[in-house]
Amino acid sequence: MPKHKLRVIPLGGLGEIGKNMMALEYGNDIIVIDAGLMFPSEEMLGVDLLIPDISYLLARQRNLRGIVITHGHEDHIGALPYVLSRIAPPIYATKFTRELILVELKQRGVKTDAKLNLVSPGSRITLGNFTIEFFSVCHSIPDCVGLIIHTPLGIVVHSGDFKIDYTPVICEATNFNQLASLGAKGVLLLLSDSTYAELPGYTPSERVVRDTLDRIVSEAKGRVIVTTFASLISRVQQVFDVAVKHGRRVFIIGRSMKEIVSMALKTGYLTAPPGIICRLDELKTLPHNRVIVLSTGSQGEPTSALVRMANRDPSSRVQIVPGDTVVISATPIPGNETLVSKTTDSLFRQGANVIYNKLAQVHVHGHGSQEELKLLLSLVKPKFFVPVHGEYRHLSLHASLAQTMGIPKDNIFVLEDGDVLELGQDSGKVVARTHVGVIYVSGLITGELDGVVLRDRKLLSRDGVVVVTIAVDAESGKLAEKPRIITRGFVDAGEGQTLIEKGRDVVLAALEKEKTFTSRRRLVEPSFVDAKVKDSLSRFFYERIHRRPVIIPVVVEVGKTQRKTTS
Amino acid sequence: MPKHKLRVIPLGGLGEIGKNMMALEYGNDIIVIDAGLMFPSEEMLGVDLLIPDISYLLARQRNLRGIVITHGHEDHIGALPYVLSRIAPPIYATKFTRELILVELKQRGVKTDAKLNLVSPGSRITLGNFTIEFFSVCHSIPDCVGLIIHTPLGIVVHSGDFKIDYTPVICEATNFNQLASLGAKGVLLLLSDSTYAELPGYTPSERVVRDTLDRIVSEAKGRVIVTTFASLISRVQQVFDVAVKHGRRVFIIGRSMKEIVSMALKTGYLTAPPGIICRLDELKTLPHNRVIVLSTGSQGEPTSALVRMANRDPSSRVQIVPGDTVVISATPIPGNETLVSKTTDSLFRQGANVIYNKLAQVHVHGHGSQEELKLLLSLVKPKFFVPVHGEYRHLSLHASLAQTMGIPKDNIFVLEDGDVLELGQDSGKVVARTHVGVIYVSGLITGELDGVVLRDRKLLSRDGVVVVTIAVDAESGKLAEKPRIITRGFVDAGEGQTLIEKGRDVVLAALEKEKTFTSRRRLVEPSFVDAKVKDSLSRFFYERIHRRPVIIPVVVEVGKTQRKTTS
Repeated sequence: MPKHKLRVIPLGGLGEIGKNMMALEYGNDIIVIDAGLMFPSEEMLGVDLLIPDISYLLARQRNLRGIVITHGHEDHIGALPYVLSRIAPPIYATKFTRELILVELKQRGVKTDAKLNLVSPGSRITLGNFTIEFFSVCHSIPDCVGLIIHTPLGIVVHSGDFKIDYTPVICEATNFNQLASLGAKGVLLLLSDSTYAELPGYTPSERVVRDTLDRIVSEAKGRVIVTTFASLISRVQQVFDVAVKHGRRVFIIGRSMKEIVSMALKTGYLTAPPGIICRLDELKTLPHNRVIVLSTGSQGEPTSALVRMANRDPSSRVQIVPGDTVVISATPIPGNETLVSKTTDSLFRQGANVIYNKLAQVHVHGHGSQEELKLLLSLVKPKFFVPVHGEYRHLSLHASLAQTMGIPKDNIFVLEDGDVLELGQDSGKVVARTHVGVIYVSGLITGELDGVVLRDRKLLSRDGVVVVTIAVDAESGKLAEKPRIITRGFVDAGEGQTLIEKGRDVVLAALEKEKTFTSRRRLVEPSFVDAKVKDSLSRFFYERIHRRPVIIPVVVEVGKTQRKTTS
Repeated sequence: MPKHKLRVIPLGGLGEIGKNMMALEYGNDIIVIDAGLMFPSEEMLGVDLLIPDISYLLARQRNLRGIVITHGHEDHIGALPYVLSRIAPPIYATKFTRELILVELKQRGVKTDAKLNLVSPGSRITLGNFTIEFFSVCHSIPDCVGLIIHTPLGIVVHSGDFKIDYTPVICEATNFNQLASLGAKGVLLLLSDSTYAELPGYTPSERVVRDTLDRIVSEAKGRVIVTTFASLISRVQQVFDVAVKHGRRVFIIGRSMKEIVSMALKTGYLTAPPGIICRLDELKTLPHNRVIVLSTGSQGEPTSALVRMANRDPSSRVQIVPGDTVVISATPIPGNETLVSKTTDSLFRQGANVIYNKLAQVHVHGHGSQEELKLLLSLVKPKFFVPVHGEYRHLSLHASLAQTMGIPKDNIFVLEDGDVLELGQDSGKVVARTHVGVIYVSGLITGELDGVVLRDRKLLSRDGVVVVTIAVDAESGKLAEKPRIITRGFVDAGEGQTLIEKGRDVVLAALEKEKTFTSRRRLVEPSFVDAKVKDSLSRFFYERIHRRPVIIPVVVEVGKTQRKTTS
């Protein structure tokens, strides 16, 4: 009879895509699965990225046995630089994943004492009361694993991010036998990827993209420019294969594409015949129908190689010419739709023939659709089920699927970040909710997303800022001069001038009417002056032009020589 | 032989969705087709909406014979309040469209001398050298028309927004015979809707939604809450029909839904048996399986009825309870994806079963797909072709379609806003480009989108603002006190305090080092002090925390009593 219950605590990644991080706790042992970041939506002004809140782990550092990483996407490894700058538990990752973690740490300039241990499908590690076996899964990056976690209460299976691909281009097909035999023995809990729980049917095999690429390249009279995710090595491999077949050479453009392709070639994840990759000087002499350009920019990232081509950036090494075919071999990540559309429009404007997913099957995604999710559920036959990875609707739909597969409703838990699920051998319950605020990174600073800083940025972004300087005569307590006004982002200098002038009169009138400055007493109440200035000006601007800028009054005392002061 | 060429001048709506406005000019006659607005993308900070630039028309007011409106969507009528506050040409619109224009003018508080003339399919008007016939087209709002425009050079056909629906729920099916006989006679120019030129095949009939709604309502054990566009009257009609069939009553929630439904009932565009619409007091007593709620909020608009339900707003008249089925009978307009996803997630969180387009066919759209576009091209057989309504990629793809239909490449013009296309009887050419800046409306002010105001808002939104007050002793020319710093949206008050204190020292050091204030001369060079403060502080903050706030220095002279001044 196990002494403890098993605690399942999502620290990130439930209820939203990205920022994946999950803690499992048994007695004095905690293991963590993944440590991802998330890119902010547009309304999170000035935010560079979002990371999970690890205060739960910080408070229990001595129990933390390690962080196990399922694969190398940013939403699974991107928070490691921030986590490892606070704590240094051992990390466990496969080879390709480990390479990407090293790049990530280097880019953020983080040095850590944490040990980066190498694991592989079939290998087994023991972390306190947890023994973890790794099994291959297919996804859109090499070397992905799922986890079989032996705990004193039973077996926990974590799917990682996965699809089922019977004809994968790079990864190994999922080891069904192992999962099926586990299912026969009895699995306590399945944690499974929900990202595409909305989609009926099966996700097509990576291999189908090859046929489309093959057709496009064979029909193209000029250059073919293919953009995809740099880490989608199987796609890169297919571009190489098609290039070989059609006697074209591949020019690689964009920093991350160059880096990852070079790393993948070195580590053997990618194979290319000698001479297939061409240099810039060679590119210039090759006929256009002998070239494929492989580029970053599939998400319309403003500084990426593809976007620079699309915008005729003179510093771009490749310029679009009519006759070019551009293949966008990716779909926009939610939130990037507009950037990708704009890029597509610009490429058409330059005369390119652009082929994207609505027009031909130039991309397949890396997550399982409903039938694949059902297959995993039916192989593993878990007693308890927790859908992971996805927004709330995906988790809900995945939960409904599991119910139709016969898992009792009471054994399915749609959790949110911070929920503490406690599982016994026969029943489970959310027993607590730990605080997991969303942590943002803005420059080198981190903070809580609901703080006043972001609220103020929102206000500033709407109608700008108005700085009002009030100079007060120290002797008389009266205004020493008419209030001065400086604005940014409020009104155009030209047409706004009259309004600003009138605004000065409004402040003057408001202050004089209240005799604010007739007694020395008033001067020590800057909050009163502040309020007066803000109220009168706010009302005036709103009446005149329906805008509400942020108003910052600055009160300065003049009329006597002041000592230099330190406050 | 016609004396003039025909000029085709898009003033808005090409290269982007919305903001549709097209001028046709022959000799001294100008007619305009539509006057739409566009909603801004998130990066257009503080912008309420975008309207076309009508300076071309303002400069030629006396030639403007009228504005002809194809239908009542915002992207076709929404700029009228702004246009009619500058000029007052006669407006021509069908009955339903005219009602919506009146609502629009009233909402924006615009009084106009412009006459709002009623037209109908089959009617004919003459505006100078142009004679215009109207023909019914199907779209997602009642009373849509296409235009047959007789000009001295030949016939111009404008499709309006259209799909081909052989079994429409409200609109009349397209009059093919009329178009075909025109095609046989010879059409000079076709302007045709490109919005869905990406999609292969045919757009399904509005009628298919009925089957889905019918199934959902018959299976639902509790309330069914349907959200759609208020102006999509055919959808509303189908909700009423399904309600009648299943013995449910309809409760309508959301201001625009109430207003438009009431208008459509009065004008006969919508029919409902007596007693089908239920009042709030009735809603409270009806069993849940006798109720359909019809709601606004299909785009996740933050103050809409559905979003208030989703967020458990206590002031909402309907609160979501487990057992409710929510049908999102719409797809997100590009740019609204995130808002709609968030709303869906929140509804699932409240326990609702949410059904949206990825899960069942609860929506069909209102624009023709590729086969419909081809059908129109093949009926009309135009000599020249200009794709309209859509982003640049849609126009390009529509142009390619037309080419595959046998229209010579030289007779197809993918225009951008402001292009002046001049057509003769045998050839056409873009002869000029008139300035059409994007005009934004922010509060009661309009301005050009590329102005400094929006650039400043962008900067403010990223890292906030830092106001630095420099008090200078008038006698000595030295600093009268240590610089003061106020910030908004920059750093948290707590952790940022040390940084701000150090920032004051940095400014102090920079100014003292340069002996800025040791001579009276320096004081009259505020630009020098400005630059000094900005440079030193900017560098300091960037080094420390990688942020670049907007820095506003305020220099005030102290140490002598100043006269009150007016500047």
